[in-house]
Amino acid sequence: MSITTLKRLIDRELSKRLPRVSEKPQILHKAMRYSVFPGGKRIRPIIVLEACKTCGGKNHDALAAACAVELIHTYSLIHDDLPSMDDDDFRRGKPSCHKKFGEANAILAGDALLTLAFNILADDLAPKIAVRAIRELSEAAGTHGMVGGQVLDIAKYKNIAIINRLKTAKLFEAAAKIGAICAGASEKKIKAMAGYGANIGMAFQLADDLTDKKELGISDASSARREAGQFIRKAKGGLKIFAAADDLRKIADLIWNV
Amino acid sequence: MSITTLKRLIDRELSKRLPRVSEKPQILHKAMRYSVFPGGKRIRPIIVLEACKTCGGKNHDALAAACAVELIHTYSLIHDDLPSMDDDDFRRGKPSCHKKFGEANAILAGDALLTLAFNILADDLAPKIAVRAIRELSEAAGTHGMVGGQVLDIAKYKNIAIINRLKTAKLFEAAAKIGAICAGASEKKIKAMAGYGANIGMAFQLADDLTDKKELGISDASSARREAGQFIRKAKGGLKIFAAADDLRKIADLIWNV
Repeated sequence: MSITTLKRLIDRELSKRLPRVSEKPQILHKAMRYSVFPGGKRIRPIIVLEACKTCGGKNHDALAAACAVELIHTYSLIHDDLPSMDDDDFRRGKPSCHKKFGEANAILAGDALLTLAFNILADDLAPKIAVRAIRELSEAAGTHGMVGGQVLDIAKYKNIAIINRLKTAKLFEAAAKIGAICAGASEKKIKAMAGYGANIGMAFQLADDLTDKKELGISDASSARREAGQFIRKAKGGLKIFAAADDLRKIADLIWNV
Repeated sequence: MSITTLKRLIDRELSKRLPRVSEKPQILHKAMRYSVFPGGKRIRPIIVLEACKTCGGKNHDALAAACAVELIHTYSLIHDDLPSMDDDDFRRGKPSCHKKFGEANAILAGDALLTLAFNILADDLAPKIAVRAIRELSEAAGTHGMVGGQVLDIAKYKNIAIINRLKTAKLFEAAAKIGAICAGASEKKIKAMAGYGANIGMAFQLADDLTDKKELGISDASSARREAGQFIRKAKGGLKIFAAADDLRKIADLIWNV
């Protein structure tokens, strides 16, 4: 299945699982959908689906989990953009959630998306798979993951690699692991997926920084490029234990060619 | 077990499950503990434990779930107090979380407590019980529960009964249900507990308003008192199907005598 087809599948499923705007409180449900759609590249949920497929599962096995991962990502963007954090007025070319709906509603829309992610996992997956996925996702999102990374980020913590690891790579790692978990993969395969996810997560963040930060010095840019290339090679190297992992390799190349 | 002993048990368990302040990022873990301790009456987790016991379970069966419920409550207080919401400088006689740690850290401490609640449930309970508890708690916390209620509250929605139902009664209802679920109770008993929790939740909110709002007119106060009494009677009436529910009756009386 092409990336475009997967994205469409994910978008349809996200729309089905988000509360309708016709339900009360409408402004909350509007704010949630406003931030989820049209969205970005949907790279994290695509990784969930492709990791599942690579471990012998079907899209259907991991679609709920893919949505949960994207909702966690979206909640983190809304909260990161807030005036007391990065104070970003724009996100993906339109006003950020708090600019459009006010600060209080933006905070609450984020809270609701985070809550909904866990609801979807508990509601949709077989219990043993659900608790494992919830554990992975809550660890990636928590104080030793995304929230912890954001705290270090706003505190102007110097070690950028640690911030990237916590804010970005942890969720990529969880995405790949959860895909494997949804396919009922062995511990060995889950571990291999974790490595793949963490490495492309780090490469993704470096690529993102290279695109965003025009002010990056030439020597900084060339060392970032070298580093990103190493992460991509490591990510691909870890895929050797899988019989057919070309789609995951393609995602790695895609990330490095953004 | 006395209420004081239960509170001590819950406090000890909460402390064990919260990240240590010695771990990074320290300010985040400090902010989380600052808001959880010394805490209030711990009425919600006590309901989890007593509902579990009334359905034949032990404290040990429901202690993790009791912590999760209290963490959700604490997160909601932190976010409700924020400048863009109720803008409260004090909570339980000390500076509110954002006054002490700054707005960004307060938002993130709330996010982390919400995330940790689901992590604890997935980590500690048997999978079938965990997914059921996570479903109940995420519904109570989500857009048709606490978050939805807070959105209506800040929008100055006129129907206070609906706000009380969403912001307060839903979590009490979930607390009582989850206690029963942790004891492996029948659907009939889980449903009876839901009714008990919802009713004492409504009574609790009315009692709280009567204590807080000195400006309440005499006729308003007397109708609130009458209403609260009705909720307490309904709560107790629903307990008839249980062989021994005196401790839950005592909690109902306690709420109405605050």
